[in-house]
Amino acid sequence: MTEHPTNGLDEIVHQRHRLGILTIAAEAKRTEFGYLRETLGLTAGNLSRHLTVLEDAGLVEVEKGYAGRRPRTWVRITRRGRSALAAELDVLAGLVRLRSALAPAQPPASG
Amino acid sequence: MTEHPTNGLDEIVHQRHRLGILTIAAEAKRTEFGYLRETLGLTAGNLSRHLTVLEDAGLVEVEKGYAGRRPRTWVRITRRGRSALAAELDVLAGLVRLRSALAPAQPPASG
Repeated sequence: MTEHPTNGLDEIVHQRHRLGILTIAAEAKRTEFGYLRETLGLTAGNLSRHLTVLEDAGLVEVEKGYAGRRPRTWVRITRRGRSALAAELDVLAGLVRLRSALAPAQPPASG
Repeated sequence: MTEHPTNGLDEIVHQRHRLGILTIAAEAKRTEFGYLRETLGLTAGNLSRHLTVLEDAGLVEVEKGYAGRRPRTWVRITRRGRSALAAELDVLAGLVRLRSALAPAQPPASG
């Protein structure tokens, strides 16, 4: 069997909203729930579900805290999360390199 | 609201097996069902379901034919499929460019 690069993708990390969460979380020491929700255009429930998937896989930690008196939920990427994101981006880089091979090959008639 | 690059990803194209199907189909004029199945490590049923999603979205065409006397199913990417794949790979290229910004920022203590 030939190996295709997409076989190396992990659905937990590859799903687009979770990929968004991880890339944002990787940019800062911790990230606030509301910021993630707005940046990714998710409902609170939807974001919570994706965070649970990531937390169960050990890729993020979710902490309750306060900003002054206001309760806040913080998301922190773990070392495992950082490694998983790096592995995902390595596979994506390989796919992107295919792009130059794909673009010019075909006449415009078939679609 | 800030826009995050993952907001521009289309689940139909981004799902890893469908992304695999499209990148393989984009490399050739037509691709045989069994080749896709083996290369992507999918069952026939699973591959069929993903092909239906792609066909319903107008991204591939599926044709029955023969190789000699043996029945064969061929998959052909459409122009719309090619455009959708190019758009996906553009977003992925943007994410991959973030990688250099992500890698060195953080101390190894937090995970």
